Amino acid sequence: MPITMYDLAAADPDIRFSPYCWRTRFALAHKGLPVETVPWRFTETERLAFSGQGRVPVIVDGDTVVSDSWEIAVYLDRAYPDRPRLIPQGGSAHALFLNAWADLTLQAGIARLIVADVWLVLRPEDQPYFRASREKLFRKTLEEVVAGREERVVDFRRTLAPLRGVLARQPWLGGEAPDYADYIVLGSLQWPRCVSRFALLEDNDPVREWRDRGYALFDGLGAAARTV
Amino acid sequence: MPITMYDLAAADPDIRFSPYCWRTRFALAHKGLPVETVPWRFTETERLAFSGQGRVPVIVDGDTVVSDSWEIAVYLDRAYPDRPRLIPQGGSAHALFLNAWADLTLQAGIARLIVADVWLVLRPEDQPYFRASREKLFRKTLEEVVAGREERVVDFRRTLAPLRGVLARQPWLGGEAPDYADYIVLGSLQWPRCVSRFALLEDNDPVREWRDRGYALFDGLGAAARTV
Repeated sequence: MPITMYDLAAADPDIRFSPYCWRTRFALAHKGLPVETVPWRFTETERLAFSGQGRVPVIVDGDTVVSDSWEIAVYLDRAYPDRPRLIPQGGSAHALFLNAWADLTLQAGIARLIVADVWLVLRPEDQPYFRASREKLFRKTLEEVVAGREERVVDFRRTLAPLRGVLARQPWLGGEAPDYADYIVLGSLQWPRCVSRFALLEDNDPVREWRDRGYALFDGLGAAARTV
Repeated sequence: MPITMYDLAAADPDIRFSPYCWRTRFALAHKGLPVETVPWRFTETERLAFSGQGRVPVIVDGDTVVSDSWEIAVYLDRAYPDRPRLIPQGGSAHALFLNAWADLTLQAGIARLIVADVWLVLRPEDQPYFRASREKLFRKTLEEVVAGREERVVDFRRTLAPLRGVLARQPWLGGEAPDYADYIVLGSLQWPRCVSRFALLEDNDPVREWRDRGYALFDGLGAAARTV
């Protein structure tokens, strides 16, 4: 029986834009595990009640329910030890730093550039929740958050320097081959790519070349994502 | 025969402030390897000619000469496999991201707050080199670089969010016990601590609590460092 994954969707159910859900999609593909995704929207928290919390991704693997993209990656390595590892044995402490950087630096930076574009792709009934919760977080309107992004994107691109530093030394964040380190950041970057036409990366940025290689993996899983 | 390490020194030869040299000091202590340090100053590049390059740290271990703090950590794990590992087997690709983040984000942020204080601790004969090279890099005078730091430090502290994210889940960056991930960042933070009285971290920052635990390791190696 394939694994079921609850996956954040836009008004268009084929636009799946959660960075965390994308991490899990790539992780499942890396493990070679088939998945059936179920579109889910921000306000449908009661549909996730069985998982004991209200956010996606949630996977259902037989009798096992796991939420939180990091916990899902750890679970998949534990439950499927004979398939390619996502996180090197003994290396999870270090991967956790990259995960925290992607969540707290990279995605915070992306949000300040494209959060108003997220609102645009949502169903009308999900828009009020999204606007209210994000405006409370930023203490600004969504439109004020993204104002001046054409200038500010230069600073954002500077925060990607550690990725360029690693990619100058090895082809993947995981080393000679991609692993969960890559899927963390590929997931983060899929989010703005799916919901926004704003040009986050310069054409000649090595991060872009790596990203495109990553989206070509697994028969083009990332590249095939529906975008606005 | 103990390992010899060339170590960046201030005018006061007991002030050792290179973040990279500190990483190596902690790495050697983790391995339980005795070391004799040799004070070295920025302009003494010819004294390092034997290493084929002009920067510290350089270690001399019998017939082996290794430069670059990352390469030294990799060398120590390879040459002393029976001693506690610095980088988990198979985990070096992920540790490299933390190393790149510390070099390119953390230290760049620290430099913008304290680079003028570094100049103050140098020998008069080393000051012109330091000022010229750093002012070329920043395209500003050292004093202009650090101007407004009391306000700007708030943004700097925000860039430490990924460290706090990891330390909320585990006691050390390396997991349950410290490893090279910790020494990378402890090294970076030793630099401003040794040369500057500027308060980089707030008193209640969890990063500070972790740092102080780190400086207590190895009989207080980090805590005992001479500071201005």
